[in-house]
Amino acid sequence: MNLILLHPDDLLNESRAKITNARQRQHILNILKATLGDEIKLGLINGNLGKGIITTINDENILLDIQLNQAPPTSLECTLLLALPRPKMLRRLLQTIATLGIKELHLMNAYRVEKSYWQTPFLQQDIIDEQLILGLEQGVDTLMPSVHLHHLFKPFVQDELPQIIQNTYAIVAHPYADQPCPAQYQQPLTIAIGPEGGFIDYEIDLLNTCGFTPVSLGNRIMRVETAVSYLLGRLS
Amino acid sequence: MNLILLHPDDLLNESRAKITNARQRQHILNILKATLGDEIKLGLINGNLGKGIITTINDENILLDIQLNQAPPTSLECTLLLALPRPKMLRRLLQTIATLGIKELHLMNAYRVEKSYWQTPFLQQDIIDEQLILGLEQGVDTLMPSVHLHHLFKPFVQDELPQIIQNTYAIVAHPYADQPCPAQYQQPLTIAIGPEGGFIDYEIDLLNTCGFTPVSLGNRIMRVETAVSYLLGRLS
Repeated sequence: MNLILLHPDDLLNESRAKITNARQRQHILNILKATLGDEIKLGLINGNLGKGIITTINDENILLDIQLNQAPPTSLECTLLLALPRPKMLRRLLQTIATLGIKELHLMNAYRVEKSYWQTPFLQQDIIDEQLILGLEQGVDTLMPSVHLHHLFKPFVQDELPQIIQNTYAIVAHPYADQPCPAQYQQPLTIAIGPEGGFIDYEIDLLNTCGFTPVSLGNRIMRVETAVSYLLGRLS
Repeated sequence: MNLILLHPDDLLNESRAKITNARQRQHILNILKATLGDEIKLGLINGNLGKGIITTINDENILLDIQLNQAPPTSLECTLLLALPRPKMLRRLLQTIATLGIKELHLMNAYRVEKSYWQTPFLQQDIIDEQLILGLEQGVDTLMPSVHLHHLFKPFVQDELPQIIQNTYAIVAHPYADQPCPAQYQQPLTIAIGPEGGFIDYEIDLLNTCGFTPVSLGNRIMRVETAVSYLLGRLS
């Protein structure tokens, strides 16, 4: 982790903070091996980046004098739609998305999404937030992405997506598309990526009708996690 | 997995094969739910792609009539150098690299590589091969990447790297580089990616002297796995 991200509750006032989170405490003391007087890189969730100087370490808290005066990096103008991945991959994906600077993520159903995936505790908001914070701490950003869940494919695509993709170039990654994926596309984007096994034809047709262009990433089939990073590298 | 990759030992003759590998058997019977007469997608390690029709299923083997007459996809003209990552990430990275079509991987030491990483059983050739095969089965390819281990940074960079990077554009991903990473670079490449925490200045300088250009991926710091996919998406 390249940053300690403070929760608003951690602020004592605008120039003092206390860290109580066990994971962050462990990182500061055991990985950074920081001690009294040391400076560490900080950020405030949905606030600025900056630094803190450790003034107290006791059994419960680490207290810091803080200075948060640096704006977080620019967010990507990119909305991501993912067919809900298997729970184990979901956690890593949430981190990756936060690291890369995506701020709007829609997790949706699709024919090849196993029903059991919707039952995972990893979809609880606090567990989602934990993963997003890890991703922001890796990427050195403070702005929390919004994650939206859509349990039904068709009503979501027909009733909500047209609004979401307005004024963006909307593409869906599809191994059998004729058109290659564009590169270095410097305009607002919406990217849709299907489940393992891909979207079925009906789903591609519906997304196409809604305004999505199917594009190919070549003839290698990637895991969803690989495809997300690969696409963002290619497009940005 | 989008392909069953046969080992040369699995061939009975050029038109018959038997599958004995437990993981592949489980995939065919429980995931694909294939039965007698069904056709499945096959490839031969370092050989062609094609298909097989199941003729026998017994307690030990699955026998197939096979036809392997399709060339594997073009490999990337890209050599990848990675500071040895932590063992858990190494396994996934090997899969990702194979999926993306990299055929030459050098795992090397660096100042911020923990010494214990070199002790992991995941560096045994048979375990490396297992991960590479999983990656090829995901990416629908047959050509096994070569993985080279370099326990000492300086002799490797000074004595072996100049030969390896000959006739390629050699770049090293470095958060503090001035030059942005190029995009859609259609020439042979060598890409170096440092450990968590990055290469130290001495290492960047040595790579630079050897012919590597430090390039930046922007001000977000990515995990190694994310950086590999992101870079390949950007450059290809």
